[in-house]
Amino acid sequence: MPTGGLPNSRFLRACRREEVDATPVWLMRQAGRYMPDYRALRQKWGILDIIKNPELAAEVTLQPINAFDLDAAIIFADILPLLVPMGVQLEFVGGEGPVILNPVRTAADVEALRLVPPEEGVPFTLKAIELVRVELDARRIPLIGFSGAPFTLASYAIEGGGSKNHLHVKRMLMGEPAVWDALMSKLARAAGEYLLAQARAGAQALQLFDSWCGQLSPSDYGQYVLPYTRRAIDIARSGNVPVILFGVGSAGLLELLAQSGADVIGVDWRIGLRAAWDRIGPDKAIQGNLDPAALFAPWEAVQPRVDEILSQAGGQPGHIFNLGHGVLPNTPLDTVKRLVDHMHVASAR
Amino acid sequence: MPTGGLPNSRFLRACRREEVDATPVWLMRQAGRYMPDYRALRQKWGILDIIKNPELAAEVTLQPINAFDLDAAIIFADILPLLVPMGVQLEFVGGEGPVILNPVRTAADVEALRLVPPEEGVPFTLKAIELVRVELDARRIPLIGFSGAPFTLASYAIEGGGSKNHLHVKRMLMGEPAVWDALMSKLARAAGEYLLAQARAGAQALQLFDSWCGQLSPSDYGQYVLPYTRRAIDIARSGNVPVILFGVGSAGLLELLAQSGADVIGVDWRIGLRAAWDRIGPDKAIQGNLDPAALFAPWEAVQPRVDEILSQAGGQPGHIFNLGHGVLPNTPLDTVKRLVDHMHVASAR
Repeated sequence: MPTGGLPNSRFLRACRREEVDATPVWLMRQAGRYMPDYRALRQKWGILDIIKNPELAAEVTLQPINAFDLDAAIIFADILPLLVPMGVQLEFVGGEGPVILNPVRTAADVEALRLVPPEEGVPFTLKAIELVRVELDARRIPLIGFSGAPFTLASYAIEGGGSKNHLHVKRMLMGEPAVWDALMSKLARAAGEYLLAQARAGAQALQLFDSWCGQLSPSDYGQYVLPYTRRAIDIARSGNVPVILFGVGSAGLLELLAQSGADVIGVDWRIGLRAAWDRIGPDKAIQGNLDPAALFAPWEAVQPRVDEILSQAGGQPGHIFNLGHGVLPNTPLDTVKRLVDHMHVASAR
Repeated sequence: MPTGGLPNSRFLRACRREEVDATPVWLMRQAGRYMPDYRALRQKWGILDIIKNPELAAEVTLQPINAFDLDAAIIFADILPLLVPMGVQLEFVGGEGPVILNPVRTAADVEALRLVPPEEGVPFTLKAIELVRVELDARRIPLIGFSGAPFTLASYAIEGGGSKNHLHVKRMLMGEPAVWDALMSKLARAAGEYLLAQARAGAQALQLFDSWCGQLSPSDYGQYVLPYTRRAIDIARSGNVPVILFGVGSAGLLELLAQSGADVIGVDWRIGLRAAWDRIGPDKAIQGNLDPAALFAPWEAVQPRVDEILSQAGGQPGHIFNLGHGVLPNTPLDTVKRLVDHMHVASAR
């Protein structure tokens, strides 16, 4: 599978901070619950069924590409299946999100985690990438692969699911630094090799999602998380495709995210795009950052918020428009369509 | 009731950015579930029972003062009872937190909200303040009164309780600005007058809690929230006591919080104290900002985190040490005691 296709796509040019004819746009969770086509499939299949079936995963990946004029696709997958071949027992419980039946809490638990090559552990996502690339190449649209960042993988593995205060994670991080190091070293390698395998299978860019990094103080993030994120990105970058690091609630961490080795920093809506880019520095591209809840407002209220973000980007090469977090369930399709179309018109150079 | 007592307390001097002999410390939710004395009372009484009984509220307020060498007390109350005399039906459901049975969603709902003088609507908290001041004056410890900030009150009133994405709030804020203005105008006045009444009853400082401001983009916060927060603070400041504005997840909003008219800005742990103070500016005091989860770590891991915050404050007059959010349930009492004692020793001038 050739991986270097479409070097002149808007999206890939923006990742490299090159001039573009219009600001590229894609949306985190652009494939998912807000789309009727997806909900129809979910009548028959569970989330993990779809992810593990390359044909279905490819189909879901293409659903938003068929519906909207997006500048990139992102492979339909989830951050947690990577943990399963390592020995974590994962279930998606209806409405409650992921549950891990055997949380990782002790040195012995960490020791027992297996490092399995992604080609063995998560072959279905790599196969889905190959399948979807055939379709996307015909439409000249690049494909993004992704992984959970080591800290977010650790959070789910330790807490056993979502968490409000992340007390178990922080207790290990603060109180048992050697156990923490062993766990994060394994997860950095797993995430990095998973990203690299996705690039080799055909992903033309890679995103690390750090959903929970915003729960940490900058000091703890810098000491106990950043080195492992950097390690994962180092491995991923040997795939020779741009790497995006997205952190939720990271307004206080941006200078540190900028030291991760990522080419693009994704920011949520809780900070102004200009302030964020100034803190990240001009040698990085930036992705973001409309409040996903804004898409529930009338279009007349959405457009000025979109234009404000474009204005803050100021036409500086290296802006990829996105939401500040994933598309929410029940988001009106018509507003998504208007957003994507407006982006290309309003940002035309 | 004299309100101007103890002008030379460490805490009040720090609010005014005057030199102190040691950094003052108090803890958000210092009275509450982690204390055995409180849990014993809760065997017999519900939260609202305690809040509505001035003797019990005074007793709970004093529990942490009896246990630890704290530099300020905060009246035991809750931000939501203020909404009840306005017409909101509030219940505390065990384990789930507050539930509002008649959420405020329409122009008519907003219109129906009544503005009642706090002396009529929430007399119990004002009476509790009078009672507890007698005890605190004898110990020369100042008392803090508080209110929810208008946006946080609006969030609970509109969503009907806690919320993940605040979609109803944002839909009104973005889509129905006139209804939003009417609601926030009422809540700004209610919160401001409640704070002022607490100052008149004896509170020597006042804190506005904005638990949810971190859900907004800086642009939306500046346009749709800051003017009302400023209005509440304007009213409160006529009580001639210092006002603290605390916002959760506000790392991207600090320049705006600094324009609120508050004397002190409280910050959570998701930003470094030095970076936060630089953004707030030297003409404001700062309160914070240890991760409350850190108190679950062994003391050897807590102390360097505390010392790091003191080091970032750099002895600059105007630092009040606190957690970055409320004390969590099950926090070890011994660690709280060591924290408070360490603060006074490590920061002695």
